[in-house]
Amino acid sequence: MTITPASQLDAADPLARFRSRFVAADDPSVVAYLDGNSLGRPLAVSGERLPGFLAGAWGRGLIRSWDEAWMAEPMTVGDRLAEIALGAAPGQVIVADSTTVLLYKLIRAGVAARPGRDEVVVDRANFPTDRFIVDGIAAECGLTARYLDPPHAAGVRPADVAAVVGPRTALVVLSHVAYRSGFIADMAAVTRVAHDAGALMLWDLCHSAGALPVELDACDVDLAAGCTYKYLNGGPGSPAFCYVAARRQEELRQPIPGWMGASDPFAMAAEYRPAKGMRKFISGTPPVLAMQPLKDMLELIAEAGLPAVRAKSVALTEHAIALADEVLAPLGAALASPRDAAERGSHITVDHPRFAEVTAALWERGVIPDFRPPNGIRIGLSPLSTSFAELERGVEAIASELASLAY
Amino acid sequence: MTITPASQLDAADPLARFRSRFVAADDPSVVAYLDGNSLGRPLAVSGERLPGFLAGAWGRGLIRSWDEAWMAEPMTVGDRLAEIALGAAPGQVIVADSTTVLLYKLIRAGVAARPGRDEVVVDRANFPTDRFIVDGIAAECGLTARYLDPPHAAGVRPADVAAVVGPRTALVVLSHVAYRSGFIADMAAVTRVAHDAGALMLWDLCHSAGALPVELDACDVDLAAGCTYKYLNGGPGSPAFCYVAARRQEELRQPIPGWMGASDPFAMAAEYRPAKGMRKFISGTPPVLAMQPLKDMLELIAEAGLPAVRAKSVALTEHAIALADEVLAPLGAALASPRDAAERGSHITVDHPRFAEVTAALWERGVIPDFRPPNGIRIGLSPLSTSFAELERGVEAIASELASLAY
Repeated sequence: MTITPASQLDAADPLARFRSRFVAADDPSVVAYLDGNSLGRPLAVSGERLPGFLAGAWGRGLIRSWDEAWMAEPMTVGDRLAEIALGAAPGQVIVADSTTVLLYKLIRAGVAARPGRDEVVVDRANFPTDRFIVDGIAAECGLTARYLDPPHAAGVRPADVAAVVGPRTALVVLSHVAYRSGFIADMAAVTRVAHDAGALMLWDLCHSAGALPVELDACDVDLAAGCTYKYLNGGPGSPAFCYVAARRQEELRQPIPGWMGASDPFAMAAEYRPAKGMRKFISGTPPVLAMQPLKDMLELIAEAGLPAVRAKSVALTEHAIALADEVLAPLGAALASPRDAAERGSHITVDHPRFAEVTAALWERGVIPDFRPPNGIRIGLSPLSTSFAELERGVEAIASELASLAY
Repeated sequence: MTITPASQLDAADPLARFRSRFVAADDPSVVAYLDGNSLGRPLAVSGERLPGFLAGAWGRGLIRSWDEAWMAEPMTVGDRLAEIALGAAPGQVIVADSTTVLLYKLIRAGVAARPGRDEVVVDRANFPTDRFIVDGIAAECGLTARYLDPPHAAGVRPADVAAVVGPRTALVVLSHVAYRSGFIADMAAVTRVAHDAGALMLWDLCHSAGALPVELDACDVDLAAGCTYKYLNGGPGSPAFCYVAARRQEELRQPIPGWMGASDPFAMAAEYRPAKGMRKFISGTPPVLAMQPLKDMLELIAEAGLPAVRAKSVALTEHAIALADEVLAPLGAALASPRDAAERGSHITVDHPRFAEVTAALWERGVIPDFRPPNGIRIGLSPLSTSFAELERGVEAIASELASLAY
């Protein structure tokens, strides 16, 4: 099979022009950045927004900006994120805390809403934080973490979930896109399986938000959470987001009742009374400064259009697989991600026993993928900031490092 | 009594020169900013640091910056904060999450470390988040929140605490500086009272960190937490910090076990094993971008010296009280803060039944204090960014609005 040259793919890429919107996207010391799914690049406009924010809303608005805008910001930015990337109507998403803390709050809220049920289903290949939080909550609440070990290496299918859920299942916690393999779970079908068993469904969207269309409302999802520093380019440690379906908001109660989630924060009331709607899922003071870059990336995604972003993402991972087949497979590397684009997010993982050494060497020469144990190089392809040429340079560098080790 | 004119106090103020380091400190549309204890002003240098961070550590360093600096940043910034403002040796402070979330983690950890004891002592005048979290944890863990109602309006004295602690007390949760009255609790004596009863002691430092010397190690404190957006000028919703005394770190276990607090975050281990030392109190990905402005303010405090900062704070609150006595008391306003400077933090509160209306009118004319229910105007005096002239303009404006209402 002949592989289309990267130059040709870049020339035909309708989103190619967006790459220059990112800071230092053509920094020659970075040969290939294949980790935009771990930390997205900053947008140049964010580099202007932040000092503007300091001089304006913070420096001149001072405390008045809380009244004028910031109190609502976790919800207004959440609504915009919901609209652009999550397929969710307004009033169901907030930006706050970290993914870990939001998962804790949602899982605690979810299991409490299903009294008499004592199992939480989670899969073994889920991201550590998800498993740690499920294990921790299971231990503290007297529940059992019921682990899924799907027979398919790539990820969890509806039948795998159907095989373990039942009248004891309170909640199912899965990643929409698997952090290692990139496998996309069938959100609608798996959610239906959980609901048929009477359980609630929580999706971790860390590896999908901003890279592919997500349809939380249409899939009848109950709960979701994710980070904003991957495909949403919010910056290192930027705040996370969570979704609680409107129909669940009344019954759910989160375990960290802070003043900013109270019905009237400035009444300094004697007792906590949760705010109405999504606001009660806020605990402490919202991280307003830290959510500014995210706003820029949301508008960039809106400008490009999420379907176009997804189309480029598919083209990038297709090209990555073609290159891996051509130059990495002959050296003994094996694809650990789905070949069917419909089942694949915006990264692929390739396994080889010597990839830990190879990754270290690659970083030395400005080729930056992630290493994922035990033996995987994860190639993350952030659609708006990654070129086909960059991807090609990266895969060729992997091959050359691997080949040099063989001698 | 004759009040020294503000112009004379400003001329003699050895810290006056620091005021110009803040963004828009002389913005003529802000007549008096008396709320630096709610949201500190930004430093001009932070306005340079943020785009530099975007272009450098984030934009060019990319994911490599996690390895090179950011993984350690919650601890390195925590250590610097500990040294400059908290009287704590290295390895006991992290910057993370929000105050609310950290209080939740510490209180859960604290009560679990005292099995068989079923009471948490907290005072009625404590900040809402502290009370809400104590109430919430008491309800979920089958404990009793034992409320202190000190006879002194201003705050909690050692004898008040001694009267309620006992063999059932697991933990005492108090604010070092009361958010409304500004009363400074006797940290050493109260901590001793808690320890004599076999309880752990947790201090909320939101209204003291950065404004007055705190001696966590010398006072034998077990746990502490606070925010960084008040006297530490970290920006709206900047991350919080917490302290766990080295001698307690081994026995305590926090309830939100995230990947970033695990012993080897990138091993993607099957089970959570907490990191050694303070790192295990981290849950999710540290808010690195959001902790950058804090670093600038810490260095400014170091440059000025915390004793000098405290001296100016005392001079400011003394002047505020003198002015309030002269121009507000005759209009029926009453001081709700200690007259003894040794018992007073960096803000005062003055009560009057019509202060809700007055505050709204003040904001309209660029005089910005806080209103605190039921009837208080809180005058916050951030020592490095507030001038005596500004304070004087502010109190005179309060008097003039109050007088105009009287007619």
